[in-house]
Amino acid sequence: MNKFEKPMGKKICDTGRNIKRFLSYHLDEYSLGDGQFGILYEIAGNEGISQEQISKNRNVDKATIAKAVKKLIDNDYIYRVKDKQDKRAYCLYCTEKGIKFIPEIKRIIILENATVTKGFTQEEVDLLSHLLERVTTNIDDFFEKEK
Amino acid sequence: MNKFEKPMGKKICDTGRNIKRFLSYHLDEYSLGDGQFGILYEIAGNEGISQEQISKNRNVDKATIAKAVKKLIDNDYIYRVKDKQDKRAYCLYCTEKGIKFIPEIKRIIILENATVTKGFTQEEVDLLSHLLERVTTNIDDFFEKEK
Repeated sequence: MNKFEKPMGKKICDTGRNIKRFLSYHLDEYSLGDGQFGILYEIAGNEGISQEQISKNRNVDKATIAKAVKKLIDNDYIYRVKDKQDKRAYCLYCTEKGIKFIPEIKRIIILENATVTKGFTQEEVDLLSHLLERVTTNIDDFFEKEK
Repeated sequence: MNKFEKPMGKKICDTGRNIKRFLSYHLDEYSLGDGQFGILYEIAGNEGISQEQISKNRNVDKATIAKAVKKLIDNDYIYRVKDKQDKRAYCLYCTEKGIKFIPEIKRIIILENATVTKGFTQEEVDLLSHLLERVTTNIDDFFEKEK
């Protein structure tokens, strides 16, 4: 089959959506969407990080990050403090509830990985990882040329 | 590196998000989100399909499909007609504007595939495709067992 007949982009997106279903299934009881889950984990590993930095790290627009941060604050997983240097920016920290939730996040990530790569040899894991990195590089290159 | 140290789920989701960025870049001028784009293409290939069937085919909840369908109707890409058999259901069809847009969708899909798989041999395309299918099967199996 010719490579153009199989929409690879769609296949990757569909697989990603399936993985998000898996995450939602495990996170629903905590009032956490899969976007918020990742951001909470990022804040836990980088206490004091700014929304802007999260936006850059995740390659997601600021408005989307702002919405997720608001939900995390509303659900008492994180809190924010005005940056002393840059008065327009906020530094984000985990609340006690957020900190207590981190082991559960780790447990879900381990379960997710075990499920996603079930039956894979280490070579196959490395191969899939490598092929996906090449896809990302291809798209980055496209945007680089469009600049 | 141990396979649990690299979150494969995150890598697949991130790659999918990157591909969606590519789609958004090409679709913004048409007031089409990447979700609507796929649904429009599906209706074009299955004139008269119901929202429920699209929801099943794409494994996406009905509310999300309903939102995307509404946007497609508002932007005059599709229209809906009450099902003669099932009065609660609607059959979806492309408008003239929708039909005229299909070649552009095909062009974007071809460009997307060429970009995503740039530098890939046919064997690598097949391999990536096969590994992603195994990931999907793994997640389906997980949900099957949870039932």
